[in-house]
Amino acid sequence: MIISDGMPDRPVEELDFNTPLQVATKPAIDSVADRGASGTMDVIAPGVVPGSDTAHLALFGYNPFEYYSGRGPFEAAGVGIDCRPGDVAFRCNFSTVDEKMRVVDRRAGRIKSGTAELAKAITGMKFEGIEVIFKEATEHRGALVLRGDGLDPRVSDVDPHEQYAMVQECRPLAPQANLTARVVNSFVKESHRILSENQVNMERASKDLPVANAVLPRGAGTLRKLERFETRFGLKASGIAGVSLLKGVFRILGFNSIDVAGATGGLDTDMLAKGAAALKALESSDLVAINIKAPDISGHDGDFAGKVTSIERIDKMVSEIRTGLPSNVLMVMLSDHSTPVSLRNHSADPVCIAMSGKGVRVDGVKKFDEIACSSGMLRGMRGIELMPTVLGVMGRAEKFGA
Amino acid sequence: MIISDGMPDRPVEELDFNTPLQVATKPAIDSVADRGASGTMDVIAPGVVPGSDTAHLALFGYNPFEYYSGRGPFEAAGVGIDCRPGDVAFRCNFSTVDEKMRVVDRRAGRIKSGTAELAKAITGMKFEGIEVIFKEATEHRGALVLRGDGLDPRVSDVDPHEQYAMVQECRPLAPQANLTARVVNSFVKESHRILSENQVNMERASKDLPVANAVLPRGAGTLRKLERFETRFGLKASGIAGVSLLKGVFRILGFNSIDVAGATGGLDTDMLAKGAAALKALESSDLVAINIKAPDISGHDGDFAGKVTSIERIDKMVSEIRTGLPSNVLMVMLSDHSTPVSLRNHSADPVCIAMSGKGVRVDGVKKFDEIACSSGMLRGMRGIELMPTVLGVMGRAEKFGA
Repeated sequence: MIISDGMPDRPVEELDFNTPLQVATKPAIDSVADRGASGTMDVIAPGVVPGSDTAHLALFGYNPFEYYSGRGPFEAAGVGIDCRPGDVAFRCNFSTVDEKMRVVDRRAGRIKSGTAELAKAITGMKFEGIEVIFKEATEHRGALVLRGDGLDPRVSDVDPHEQYAMVQECRPLAPQANLTARVVNSFVKESHRILSENQVNMERASKDLPVANAVLPRGAGTLRKLERFETRFGLKASGIAGVSLLKGVFRILGFNSIDVAGATGGLDTDMLAKGAAALKALESSDLVAINIKAPDISGHDGDFAGKVTSIERIDKMVSEIRTGLPSNVLMVMLSDHSTPVSLRNHSADPVCIAMSGKGVRVDGVKKFDEIACSSGMLRGMRGIELMPTVLGVMGRAEKFGA
Repeated sequence: MIISDGMPDRPVEELDFNTPLQVATKPAIDSVADRGASGTMDVIAPGVVPGSDTAHLALFGYNPFEYYSGRGPFEAAGVGIDCRPGDVAFRCNFSTVDEKMRVVDRRAGRIKSGTAELAKAITGMKFEGIEVIFKEATEHRGALVLRGDGLDPRVSDVDPHEQYAMVQECRPLAPQANLTARVVNSFVKESHRILSENQVNMERASKDLPVANAVLPRGAGTLRKLERFETRFGLKASGIAGVSLLKGVFRILGFNSIDVAGATGGLDTDMLAKGAAALKALESSDLVAINIKAPDISGHDGDFAGKVTSIERIDKMVSEIRTGLPSNVLMVMLSDHSTPVSLRNHSADPVCIAMSGKGVRVDGVKKFDEIACSSGMLRGMRGIELMPTVLGVMGRAEKFGA
């Protein structure tokens, strides 16, 4: 299952009102459509703009309206904190604040080293019986998990989301969240005190680099109890992604999340290494999912040429995967959402899907793009229907009735 | 949003088994399909025959199963009575009855003048603490609203729906509706007494015209509490319709309902005036909806040639609208339901939809008719999904997740 993040688009004026998928040279991707069944899919529902996290939940068979309550737990799981139901988790930035708690730099100069040491200095605290777990993520990012009885995720962000604004007090958005808000505020205050005196920051100050003297939580969420993927669908699954949010989705669903050297989640990611890792993982998994973030990044950047290039690089990976693919393996090509370059953001436009392999009916669609796929056999499918459909094609769906 | 009421049809034998949409010359309408995305749509659900009121509710994003309980409140709102949640409203006819309360003419000779005076004579009564509001509508029609505590819409019709039948007593269909039924019966009796003595009827009698000496309520409904359209979707909306039922839908949803001189809701309606008014309304609205009743009337009349003519007249209006349309405005062409000339009534057949404008993916459909549209990108959409889809294309849908 190859998930090209944000790949579908809208007509682009500079491409003569074609989409990047329509102009890219992508024989391997097209051959999945040509030799199989295609369609367009509302990953969540018509008019709902999917996030990457909610979209992946849907594609893996979990209704996000039921299982999703904020990005925090997925980010936390992505950096290796095993969230438990009831935990409240936050995404955080290491930031630079002045003595009045005004944000001078939301990303502490995009700090690249020393965050592991800073994280170690502030994790493990306890406030009012609540355990605080903090772990650094890539660059200035981190994850905060609160664990204990009586927590509730309905609290406001501490991060003001803009420079030169004051660090916000965490406010309960429901009476049940009073304890959570107090603990967050205690943590922000105490971590600021500790970080200000940390050796890493002393050294940064001496080099005139912005100090990472505050941690600003946002995006509180709690982990809903969910059945492991293998229990739900009877498939042992592995996942390959560069970005921690999606690693978190994999871990929370019980996938084997594989770290691939060179898989950065950036434009420079080593796609061929990811493809090779996927083939390897197939030896011990029933399902392997790969997420490629590059086209989404080009979409957010408004860079149609970059998107075309990303698609053509993905095509090379798909070509290598097809070459090495055992004949009994289905290939599913799709995306989690559209990220039109004209919007520089996710959109609610349907995504393309194509599926090929043994047992798949072959429709007349020959190209993998937004227009060609819309006349295919799979059109109108919802994301949540993908896993049952795949199980059906694999002959692993259960009969209902006699 | 151009809603051509009842326009889609079935194969018509006299048209060589084509539909009116297939034989009409309609370059402007076709170009919406040609330059955009098309489809066929179940406005409510497969096999559900939509009324104009329930269909418009669905198209504007309100599930009619949740928000609709009878036509009365929409008719009442359409003639300018501001219904409140809890009111029970009825459609009424001015009718001619004999001394035994037998219906001699359900429409009082399609009385055209004097109804305002008659209405004034019977509105404002009170029975058992319930206020009676009555207002005349076009020709023999009127609207009755009961206001007060303890009302319930589950009552039977007073109108027997056929000539020479006896005026029916209003019966409660649930014990909670006893008060409502008593008030209706009191109103029917008392209004009959007052109308019989009214000067308008004296003059009609002297000219041998059928007297409008009774008011016969039917179609009781109560207004469900519903969120204003602007609150729900963040769009300031205007609506243009000739018929009062749809003006009522507009008013109840909080649209600015625009009265256009010459917009009669009949075959003779001034469509170009409606189109011009729509363009003007766009200057101060985010969404403008136009309803054109003409094709529905031809459908009810079983008049296929008239339907073709209506479609060709609509095409001229669409052409003028397109010419004046700012480039950032989406155009959505659709219908509330099919009214096949062979049935002379609404049907559950899907309607055609086409959408064009900035950001819309362009599929291969080139004509706007029941057959061509069915292979388009939007096929399978439900009416209730239109507003989310439109918000998505406009880039105004909210992201779910990260």
